[in-house]
Amino acid sequence: MLEIKVKTASRVEARNITNDVARALKNEEGALVYLFTPHTTCGLLINEDADPAVMSDIMDALNRLVPRNHTYKHAEGNADAHIKSSLTGHSLLVPFSGGRLALGTWQGIFLMEFDGPRERKVQVAVLR
Amino acid sequence: MLEIKVKTASRVEARNITNDVARALKNEEGALVYLFTPHTTCGLLINEDADPAVMSDIMDALNRLVPRNHTYKHAEGNADAHIKSSLTGHSLLVPFSGGRLALGTWQGIFLMEFDGPRERKVQVAVLR
Amino acid sequence: MLEIKVKTASRVEARNITNDVARALKNEEGALVYLFTPHTTCGLLINEDADPAVMSDIMDALNRLVPRNHTYKHAEGNADAHIKSSLTGHSLLVPFSGGRLALGTWQGIFLMEFDGPRERKVQVAVLR
Repeated sequence: MLEIKVKTASRVEARNITNDVARALKNEEGALVYLFTPHTTCGLLINEDADPAVMSDIMDALNRLVPRNHTYKHAEGNADAHIKSSLTGHSLLVPFSGGRLALGTWQGIFLMEFDGPRERKVQVAVLR
Repeated sequence: MLEIKVKTASRVEARNITNDVARALKNEEGALVYLFTPHTTCGLLINEDADPAVMSDIMDALNRLVPRNHTYKHAEGNADAHIKSSLTGHSLLVPFSGGRLALGTWQGIFLMEFDGPRERKVQVAVLR
Repeated sequence: MLEIKVKTASRVEARNITNDVARALKNEEGALVYLFTPHTTCGLLINEDADPAVMSDIMDALNRLVPRNHTYKHAEGNADAHIKSSLTGHSLLVPFSGGRLALGTWQGIFLMEFDGPRERKVQVAVLR
Protein backbone atom coordinates (compact mmCIF):
# COMPACT_ATOMS: atom_id res chain seq x y z
CA MET A 1 0.00 0.00 0.00
CA LEU A 2 1.26 3.49 -0.91
CA GLU A 3 1.21 6.22 1.73
CA ILE A 4 0.85 9.99 1.61
CA LYS A 5 1.76 12.18 4.56
CA VAL A 6 -0.12 15.43 5.08
CA LYS A 7 0.93 18.07 7.60
CA THR A 8 -2.15 20.04 8.46
CA ALA A 9 -1.74 23.65 9.56
CA SER A 10 -4.64 24.40 11.89
CA ARG A 11 -7.27 22.75 14.08
CA VAL A 12 -9.77 22.38 11.26
CA GLU A 13 -8.80 22.39 7.62
CA ALA A 14 -10.15 21.02 4.35
CA ARG A 15 -6.88 20.09 2.68
CA ASN A 16 -7.01 19.39 -1.06
CA ILE A 17 -4.94 16.22 -1.60
CA THR A 18 -6.00 15.50 -5.19
CA ASN A 19 -2.55 16.23 -6.62
CA ASP A 20 -0.77 14.31 -3.84
CA VAL A 21 -2.90 11.26 -4.61
CA ALA A 22 -2.31 11.62 -8.37
CA ARG A 23 1.45 11.83 -7.81
CA ALA A 24 1.47 8.73 -5.60
CA LEU A 25 -0.33 6.81 -8.37
CA LYS A 26 2.23 7.48 -11.10
CA ASN A 27 2.99 4.22 -12.94
CA GLU A 28 0.10 2.39 -11.28
CA GLU A 29 -2.51 0.46 -13.22
CA GLY A 30 -6.03 -0.55 -12.29
CA ALA A 31 -9.67 0.51 -12.30
CA LEU A 32 -10.31 1.94 -8.83
CA VAL A 33 -8.29 3.83 -6.24
CA TYR A 34 -8.83 3.07 -2.57
CA LEU A 35 -7.97 5.75 0.01
CA PHE A 36 -7.91 5.15 3.75
CA THR A 37 -6.92 7.35 6.66
CA PRO A 38 -5.99 5.38 9.82
CA HIS A 39 -7.07 8.10 12.28
CA THR A 40 -10.22 8.82 14.31
CA THR A 41 -10.32 12.63 14.26
CA CYS A 42 -10.00 13.36 10.54
CA GLY A 43 -11.85 12.14 7.47
CA LEU A 44 -11.89 11.97 3.69
CA LEU A 45 -14.37 13.70 1.39
CA ILE A 46 -14.95 14.34 -2.28
CA ASN A 47 -16.32 17.76 -3.18
CA GLU A 48 -15.72 20.88 -5.24
CA ASP A 49 -12.17 21.65 -6.34
CA ALA A 50 -13.02 25.04 -7.96
CA ASP A 51 -14.40 27.67 -5.54
CA PRO A 52 -12.66 27.18 -2.14
CA ALA A 53 -15.73 28.74 -0.49
CA VAL A 54 -17.49 25.39 -0.96
CA MET A 55 -15.12 23.48 1.32
CA SER A 56 -15.23 26.37 3.78
CA ASP A 57 -19.05 26.15 3.84
CA ILE A 58 -18.83 22.37 4.37
CA MET A 59 -16.45 22.82 7.31
CA ASP A 60 -18.62 25.59 8.78
CA ALA A 61 -21.70 23.38 8.51
CA LEU A 62 -19.94 20.53 10.33
CA ASN A 63 -18.90 22.98 13.05
CA ARG A 64 -22.49 24.19 13.39
CA LEU A 65 -23.90 20.64 13.55
CA VAL A 66 -21.20 19.42 15.96
CA PRO A 67 -19.91 22.35 18.01
CA ARG A 68 -16.56 22.03 19.72
CA ASN A 69 -17.89 23.60 22.91
CA HIS A 70 -20.51 21.20 24.10
CA THR A 71 -20.43 19.01 27.22
CA TYR A 72 -19.05 15.73 25.89
CA LYS A 73 -18.14 12.65 27.95
CA HIS A 74 -14.77 12.13 26.23
CA ALA A 75 -12.47 14.37 28.24
CA GLU A 76 -9.69 15.09 25.75
CA GLY A 77 -11.37 18.15 24.23
CA ASN A 78 -11.68 16.62 20.77
CA ALA A 79 -14.98 14.73 20.96
CA ASP A 80 -16.35 16.98 18.22
CA ALA A 81 -13.53 15.81 15.94
CA HIS A 82 -14.38 12.13 16.50
CA ILE A 83 -18.03 12.84 15.68
CA LYS A 84 -17.19 14.83 12.54
CA SER A 85 -14.87 12.09 11.30
CA SER A 86 -17.76 9.63 11.76
CA LEU A 87 -19.99 11.81 9.57
CA THR A 88 -17.41 12.07 6.76
CA GLY A 89 -15.93 8.56 6.94
CA HIS A 90 -12.37 7.29 6.65
CA SER A 91 -12.19 5.82 3.15
CA LEU A 92 -12.98 6.66 -0.47
CA LEU A 93 -13.14 4.58 -3.63
CA VAL A 94 -12.49 6.58 -6.79
CA PRO A 95 -12.50 5.60 -10.49
CA PHE A 96 -9.04 5.27 -12.07
CA SER A 97 -8.49 5.02 -15.80
CA GLY A 98 -5.36 5.09 -17.95
CA GLY A 99 -3.21 5.82 -14.93
CA ARG A 100 -5.25 8.85 -13.86
CA LEU A 101 -7.92 9.61 -11.28
CA ALA A 102 -11.21 9.72 -13.18
CA LEU A 103 -12.98 12.21 -10.95
CA GLY A 104 -15.88 14.34 -12.15
CA THR A 105 -15.12 17.76 -13.65
CA TRP A 106 -15.62 19.65 -10.39
CA GLN A 107 -14.52 16.99 -7.95
CA GLY A 108 -11.41 17.00 -5.77
CA ILE A 109 -10.28 14.81 -2.88
CA PHE A 110 -10.00 16.41 0.56
CA LEU A 111 -8.49 15.37 3.86
CA MET A 112 -10.80 16.85 6.47
CA GLU A 113 -8.72 17.76 9.52
CA PHE A 114 -10.85 18.18 12.64
CA ASP A 115 -8.20 18.10 15.37
CA GLY A 116 -4.98 19.53 13.96
CA PRO A 117 -2.45 20.64 13.37
CA ARG A 118 -0.99 17.13 12.98
CA GLU A 119 0.76 14.90 10.51
CA ARG A 120 -1.85 12.66 8.93
CA LYS A 121 -1.42 9.53 6.84
CA VAL A 122 -3.50 8.58 3.84
CA GLN A 123 -3.01 5.06 2.48
CA VAL A 124 -3.55 4.56 -1.23
CA ALA A 125 -4.02 1.31 -3.18
CA VAL A 126 -5.13 0.49 -6.71
CA LEU A 127 -7.74 -2.20 -7.33
CA ARG A 128 -7.83 -4.03 -10.65
CA MET B 1 -17.27 1.26 -16.65
CA LEU B 2 -21.03 1.20 -17.29
CA GLU B 3 -23.04 4.40 -17.00
CA ILE B 4 -26.60 5.20 -16.02
CA LYS B 5 -28.19 8.57 -16.75
CA VAL B 6 -30.85 9.89 -14.42
CA LYS B 7 -32.98 12.96 -15.20
CA THR B 8 -34.14 14.33 -11.91
CA ALA B 9 -37.43 16.26 -11.80
CA SER B 10 -37.10 18.76 -8.98
CA ARG B 11 -34.55 20.56 -6.79
CA VAL B 12 -34.42 17.81 -4.20
CA GLU B 13 -35.43 14.25 -4.93
CA ALA B 14 -34.63 10.80 -3.59
CA ARG B 15 -34.70 8.84 -6.85
CA ASN B 16 -34.88 5.06 -6.60
CA ILE B 17 -32.33 3.74 -9.11
CA THR B 18 -32.27 0.10 -7.93
CA ASN B 19 -33.91 -1.21 -11.12
CA ASP B 20 -31.74 0.98 -13.37
CA VAL B 21 -28.62 -0.44 -11.71
CA ALA B 22 -29.94 -4.01 -11.98
CA ARG B 23 -30.66 -3.53 -15.71
CA ALA B 24 -27.17 -2.11 -16.37
CA LEU B 25 -25.67 -5.20 -14.72
CA LYS B 26 -27.38 -7.77 -16.95
CA ASN B 27 -24.82 -10.35 -18.10
CA GLU B 28 -22.17 -9.09 -15.66
CA GLU B 29 -20.32 -11.38 -13.26
CA GLY B 30 -18.55 -10.62 -10.02
CA ALA B 31 -18.94 -10.29 -6.26
CA LEU B 32 -19.40 -6.56 -5.62
CA VAL B 33 -20.96 -3.66 -7.49
CA TYR B 34 -19.30 -0.25 -7.32
CA LEU B 35 -21.42 2.87 -7.92
CA PHE B 36 -19.98 6.36 -8.30
CA THR B 37 -21.58 9.68 -9.12
CA PRO B 38 -19.12 12.24 -10.56
CA HIS B 39 -20.97 15.31 -9.23
CA THR B 40 -20.65 17.54 -6.16
CA THR B 41 -24.30 18.40 -5.45
CA CYS B 42 -25.91 14.97 -5.39
CA GLY B 43 -25.12 11.75 -3.55
CA LEU B 44 -25.84 8.03 -3.31
CA LEU B 45 -27.59 6.28 -0.43
CA ILE B 46 -28.96 2.89 0.50
CA ASN B 47 -32.20 2.87 2.46
CA GLU B 48 -35.75 1.59 2.50
CA ASP B 49 -37.37 0.61 -0.80
CA ALA B 50 -40.83 -0.12 0.70
CA ASP B 51 -42.56 2.88 2.32
CA PRO B 52 -41.62 6.03 0.30
CA ALA B 53 -42.18 8.08 3.46
CA VAL B 54 -38.78 6.87 4.70
CA MET B 55 -36.84 8.57 1.90
CA SER B 56 -39.03 11.65 2.31
CA ASP B 57 -38.15 11.76 6.02
CA ILE B 58 -34.45 11.36 5.16
CA MET B 59 -34.60 14.26 2.70
CA ASP B 60 -36.54 16.42 5.18
CA ALA B 61 -33.94 15.70 7.89
CA LEU B 62 -31.10 16.74 5.57
CA ASN B 63 -33.01 19.93 4.76
CA ARG B 64 -33.45 20.65 8.46
CA LEU B 65 -29.79 20.00 9.27
CA VAL B 66 -28.52 21.97 6.25
CA PRO B 67 -31.08 24.64 5.32
CA ARG B 68 -30.97 26.13 1.83
CA ASN B 69 -31.51 29.64 3.20
CA HIS B 70 -28.47 30.28 5.31
CA THR B 71 -25.68 32.78 4.66
CA TYR B 72 -23.07 30.67 2.87
CA LYS B 73 -19.81 31.90 1.33
CA HIS B 74 -20.29 30.02 -1.95
CA ALA B 75 -22.37 32.46 -3.97
CA GLU B 76 -24.11 30.14 -6.44
CA GLY B 77 -27.10 29.44 -4.18
CA ASN B 78 -26.39 25.71 -3.89
CA ALA B 79 -23.94 25.54 -0.96
CA ASP B 80 -26.49 23.45 0.94
CA ALA B 81 -26.41 20.88 -1.88
CA HIS B 82 -22.60 20.57 -1.67
CA ILE B 83 -22.85 20.04 2.09
CA LYS B 84 -25.62 17.45 1.80
CA SER B 85 -23.68 15.52 -0.85
CA SER B 86 -20.72 15.46 1.58
CA LEU B 87 -22.93 13.91 4.26
CA THR B 88 -24.27 11.18 1.95
CA GLY B 89 -21.12 10.49 -0.09
CA HIS B 90 -20.60 9.79 -3.78
CA SER B 91 -20.02 6.04 -3.96
CA LEU B 92 -21.51 2.75 -2.81
CA LEU B 93 -20.24 -0.81 -2.77
CA VAL B 94 -23.00 -3.42 -2.88
CA PRO B 95 -22.91 -7.23 -2.77
CA PHE B 96 -23.56 -8.94 -6.13
CA SER B 97 -24.29 -12.64 -6.48
CA GLY B 98 -25.38 -14.79 -9.40
CA GLY B 99 -25.75 -11.73 -11.61
CA ARG B 100 -28.05 -9.91 -9.17
CA LEU B 101 -27.72 -7.16 -6.58
CA ALA B 102 -27.69 -8.90 -3.21
CA LEU B 103 -29.25 -6.09 -1.20
CA GLY B 104 -31.07 -6.66 2.08
CA THR B 105 -34.83 -7.33 1.97
CA TRP B 106 -35.79 -3.71 2.55
CA GLN B 107 -32.87 -1.99 0.87
CA GLY B 108 -32.92 0.03 -2.33
CA ILE B 109 -30.35 2.30 -3.98
CA PHE B 110 -31.13 6.00 -4.23
CA LEU B 111 -29.64 8.92 -6.10
CA MET B 112 -30.06 11.87 -3.76
CA GLU B 113 -30.59 14.99 -5.86
CA PHE B 114 -29.91 18.17 -3.91
CA ASP B 115 -29.64 20.73 -6.74
CA GLY B 116 -31.89 19.61 -9.58
CA PRO B 117 -33.53 19.24 -11.85
CA ARG B 118 -30.51 17.98 -13.82
CA GLU B 119 -29.26 15.01 -15.76
CA ARG B 120 -27.01 13.01 -13.42
CA LYS B 121 -24.57 10.23 -14.22
CA VAL B 122 -23.99 7.14 -12.11
CA GLN B 123 -21.04 4.96 -13.08
CA VAL B 124 -21.31 1.26 -12.38
CA ALA B 125 -18.59 -1.40 -12.29
CA VAL B 126 -18.40 -5.00 -11.11
CA LEU B 127 -15.53 -6.17 -8.93
CA ARG B 128 -14.53 -9.82 -8.92
CA MET C 1 -19.37 -14.14 1.62
CA LEU C 2 -18.81 -14.68 5.36
CA GLU C 3 -21.46 -13.55 7.83
CA ILE C 4 -21.38 -12.31 11.41
CA LYS C 5 -24.50 -12.17 13.56
CA VAL C 6 -24.77 -9.53 16.25
CA LYS C 7 -27.52 -9.49 18.89
CA THR C 8 -27.88 -5.93 20.04
CA ALA C 9 -29.13 -5.29 23.57
CA SER C 10 -30.94 -1.96 23.47
CA ARG C 11 -32.60 0.53 21.12
CA VAL C 12 -29.38 2.38 20.35
CA GLU C 13 -25.96 0.85 20.83
CA ALA C 14 -22.48 1.29 19.41
CA ARG C 15 -21.35 -2.34 19.36
CA ASN C 16 -17.65 -2.98 18.91
CA ILE C 17 -17.39 -5.81 16.35
CA THR C 18 -13.65 -5.55 15.64
CA ASN C 19 -12.86 -8.90 17.24
CA ASP C 20 -15.84 -10.62 15.60
CA VAL C 21 -14.65 -9.43 12.21
CA ALA C 22 -11.06 -10.51 12.94
CA ARG C 23 -12.26 -13.99 13.97
CA ALA C 24 -14.36 -14.39 10.81
CA LEU C 25 -11.28 -13.57 8.72
CA LYS C 26 -9.04 -16.29 10.16
CA ASN C 27 -7.28 -18.10 7.29
CA GLU C 28 -8.37 -15.51 4.73
CA GLU C 29 -5.94 -13.78 2.38
CA GLY C 30 -6.24 -10.49 0.56
CA ALA C 31 -5.63 -6.76 0.73
CA LEU C 32 -8.98 -5.24 1.73
CA VAL C 33 -11.90 -6.31 3.86
CA TYR C 34 -15.41 -5.38 2.76
CA LEU C 35 -18.17 -5.15 5.38
CA PHE C 36 -21.84 -4.73 4.56
CA THR C 37 -24.94 -4.69 6.73
CA PRO C 38 -28.15 -5.55 4.81
CA HIS C 39 -30.46 -3.48 7.05
CA THR C 40 -31.93 0.04 6.88
CA THR C 41 -31.97 1.04 10.56
CA CYS C 42 -28.39 0.31 11.60
CA GLY C 43 -25.02 1.30 10.17
CA LEU C 44 -21.28 0.69 10.26
CA LEU C 45 -18.62 3.11 11.52
CA ILE C 46 -14.94 3.22 12.25
CA ASN C 47 -13.92 5.20 15.32
CA GLU C 48 -12.07 5.04 18.62
CA ASP C 49 -11.61 1.65 20.25
CA ALA C 50 -9.96 3.00 23.46
CA ASP C 51 -12.18 5.34 25.54
CA PRO C 52 -15.81 4.11 25.24
CA ALA C 53 -16.95 7.69 25.93
CA VAL C 54 -16.09 8.50 22.30
CA MET C 55 -18.69 6.15 20.83
CA SER C 56 -21.17 7.33 23.46
CA ASP C 57 -20.57 10.95 22.37
CA ILE C 58 -21.03 9.93 18.71
CA MET C 59 -24.34 8.23 19.50
CA ASP C 60 -25.49 11.21 21.59
CA ALA C 61 -24.63 13.59 18.75
CA LEU C 62 -26.65 11.52 16.27
CA ASN C 63 -29.58 11.54 18.70
CA ARG C 64 -29.34 15.33 19.02
CA LEU C 65 -29.15 15.84 15.25
CA VAL C 66 -31.95 13.36 14.53
CA PRO C 67 -34.27 13.16 17.53
CA ARG C 68 -36.53 10.14 17.89
CA ASN C 69 -39.47 12.31 18.90
CA HIS C 70 -40.14 14.44 15.86
CA THR C 71 -43.16 14.32 13.56
CA TYR C 72 -42.01 12.02 10.77
CA LYS C 73 -44.09 10.72 7.85
CA HIS C 74 -42.97 7.10 8.25
CA ALA C 75 -45.41 5.78 10.82
CA GLU C 76 -43.47 2.87 12.35
CA GLY C 77 -41.75 4.98 15.01
CA ASN C 78 -38.25 4.35 13.69
CA ALA C 79 -37.82 7.08 11.07
CA ASP C 80 -34.93 8.49 13.12
CA ALA C 81 -33.15 5.14 12.81
CA HIS C 82 -33.47 5.17 9.00
CA ILE C 83 -32.05 8.70 8.89
CA LYS C 84 -29.15 7.86 11.23
CA SER C 85 -28.25 4.79 9.17
CA SER C 86 -28.14 7.06 6.10
CA LEU C 87 -25.65 9.34 7.86
CA THR C 88 -23.36 6.48 8.88
CA GLY C 89 -23.69 4.27 5.80
CA HIS C 90 -23.99 0.49 5.42
CA SER C 91 -20.54 -0.58 4.26
CA LEU C 92 -16.86 -0.22 5.13
CA LEU C 93 -13.67 -1.07 3.28
CA VAL C 94 -10.71 -1.72 5.60
CA PRO C 95 -7.05 -2.55 4.88
CA PHE C 96 -6.07 -6.19 5.47
CA SER C 97 -2.51 -7.39 5.60
CA GLY C 98 -0.91 -10.70 6.55
CA GLY C 99 -4.29 -12.10 7.54
CA ARG C 100 -5.06 -9.25 9.95
CA LEU C 101 -7.18 -6.09 9.89
CA ALA C 102 -4.73 -3.23 9.36
CA LEU C 103 -6.69 -0.56 11.22
CA GLY C 104 -5.07 2.53 12.71
CA THR C 105 -3.80 2.36 16.30
CA TRP C 106 -6.97 3.83 17.80
CA GLN C 107 -9.50 2.52 15.31
CA GLY C 108 -12.17 -0.09 15.88
CA ILE C 109 -15.17 -1.23 13.82
CA PHE C 110 -18.64 -0.58 15.21
CA LEU C 111 -22.12 -1.73 14.34
CA MET C 112 -24.33 1.27 15.07
CA GLU C 113 -27.72 -0.02 16.24
CA PHE C 114 -30.43 2.62 15.94
CA ASP C 115 -33.58 0.49 16.29
CA GLY C 116 -32.77 -2.47 18.51
CA PRO C 117 -32.67 -4.72 20.22
CA ARG C 118 -32.44 -7.00 17.17
CA GLU C 119 -30.26 -9.63 15.59
CA ARG C 120 -28.19 -7.91 12.89
CA LYS C 121 -26.13 -9.41 10.10
CA VAL C 122 -22.79 -8.13 8.88
CA GLN C 123 -21.44 -9.67 5.69
CA VAL C 124 -17.68 -9.87 5.31
CA ALA C 125 -15.59 -10.50 2.21
CA VAL C 126 -11.91 -10.22 1.39
CA LEU C 127 -10.76 -8.46 -1.79
CA ARG C 128 -7.43 -9.34 -3.36
